[in-house]
Amino acid sequence: METIGFIGLGIMGAPVARNLLKAGYPVVVHNRSRDSVDDLVKDGATAANSPREVAEQTKAIITMLPDSPDVEQVAFGDDGLLEGLQAGTLFIDMSTIAPATALEVDKRFSEKRVSCLDAPVSGGEVGAIEGTLSIMVGGSEEAFEKAEPLFEVMGKNIVHIGEAGAGQVTKACNQVVVGLTIQAISEALALAKKSGVDVAKVRSALLGGFAQSRILDLHGQRILDGNFKPGFRMNLHRKDVGIALEAGDQQNLELPATKLVAQQMSRLIDAGKDGLDHSGLYVLYDE
Amino acid sequence: METIGFIGLGIMGAPVARNLLKAGYPVVVHNRSRDSVDDLVKDGATAANSPREVAEQTKAIITMLPDSPDVEQVAFGDDGLLEGLQAGTLFIDMSTIAPATALEVDKRFSEKRVSCLDAPVSGGEVGAIEGTLSIMVGGSEEAFEKAEPLFEVMGKNIVHIGEAGAGQVTKACNQVVVGLTIQAISEALALAKKSGVDVAKVRSALLGGFAQSRILDLHGQRILDGNFKPGFRMNLHRKDVGIALEAGDQQNLELPATKLVAQQMSRLIDAGKDGLDHSGLYVLYDE
Repeated sequence: METIGFIGLGIMGAPVARNLLKAGYPVVVHNRSRDSVDDLVKDGATAANSPREVAEQTKAIITMLPDSPDVEQVAFGDDGLLEGLQAGTLFIDMSTIAPATALEVDKRFSEKRVSCLDAPVSGGEVGAIEGTLSIMVGGSEEAFEKAEPLFEVMGKNIVHIGEAGAGQVTKACNQVVVGLTIQAISEALALAKKSGVDVAKVRSALLGGFAQSRILDLHGQRILDGNFKPGFRMNLHRKDVGIALEAGDQQNLELPATKLVAQQMSRLIDAGKDGLDHSGLYVLYDE
Repeated sequence: METIGFIGLGIMGAPVARNLLKAGYPVVVHNRSRDSVDDLVKDGATAANSPREVAEQTKAIITMLPDSPDVEQVAFGDDGLLEGLQAGTLFIDMSTIAPATALEVDKRFSEKRVSCLDAPVSGGEVGAIEGTLSIMVGGSEEAFEKAEPLFEVMGKNIVHIGEAGAGQVTKACNQVVVGLTIQAISEALALAKKSGVDVAKVRSALLGGFAQSRILDLHGQRILDGNFKPGFRMNLHRKDVGIALEAGDQQNLELPATKLVAQQMSRLIDAGKDGLDHSGLYVLYDE
């Protein structure tokens, strides 16, 4: 089986890399901090000292990094991928980053005859561990077909949306919908509670009708339980919502409710509550 | 079977009254405009000339009216219900009105030994015709049990939430969630479209993951089709969102996203687009 290069062994990246090892792929790993590299090496991976080394040693490379600047650094920085990329390499970025950054990576890597996919995921740590991530993919049909066996190791709901950047746009849309729906159920359930009405019954009644959503079901239950342990941390969702606002700006599209939700998330983060699950938006309305 | 009084034969009220007739109940009807009364009389109903007459002739009375002032007028106005109510009557208001108005009706009618339920519905004209409405009920357990056979003629998802006013609070919560979720998918799908990404594929991908909602499914399809024929009209949803904001104010609860959505709906209404389906919020972002 083809050797896979894997850069970014965080909460999401480490279990995905481990699933590739379990599926039988040789994996060459790199990460800024060394500890997580050592853990993967124990599980059978080979360590590389830089993104450049990963690029020199493998022709299928996956990155799973926190934010756009991290991807830019790994791709274009000193000892970055660009310095070592071989023609014919398949590059898959599974980070959630700005569509504009995904397009820049695609442009500059294409000049090296490297085909690129932007393939952000949703489904969180549990999805990463269990191999049940949703994967939203942008890039050429040819590159997508090449990557499909790898995606099938990692996820279940794998959708090829369109050309380069389309995966990141879809992820931004996803985070807009999720953020605003959390805001919706926060305002509604706070109204019920402050009005002295049984919040559990309101949630049940709404789930049976047009207001039904997966978020009302799962995060509605979290709100009932007062359980805001992550899950998906507020500060990461704030980052993703910022990406959506930036992408909107570039299309001269105002997204007023997205902007409002970003402000509400920032209020909590500024108050030191950045480690709450994103469903913790609710606490702003039940103080 | 007991004779039912029915006041308010609009788009929702007329088919509900007709379903009661079909189920075998004698129905005494009243409506401000006479045409809809005549239609129901053709179907077997008896006409009354005022709410007072309805109250004098029946001991189970249903109202289904546009807004709080209409309910106040029918209940407390000249020739209103209060002038004719008999002790032991069951009064069911199925209008969507302010929880505070529901509480006032309950208080003043209770003094006449009339038991009250606030029982707003969702499910629209189709639900009213097909007898598949969702019904959110506030009031005593005893009154709810008495009303249950009537509700079963009208709806499917019938939930007794709590004491007087609880039905209206739940409906306000429902309209908050529905309005904000429409705003969410409007911003997200507009972002996808303006970014040049296939909106149908984005909708599909999001439906498969955490962003899933009935509204993304049904109204997402409306947005794809550019079909904003009502359905549920913008100006009615604007009214309901106003009720939620008022109910929030009374609990000193700020609902910032609900307020934003109210403003967006008002923009469309002020532009003469009050007859659009509420999913038509989307057009603000795709102009």
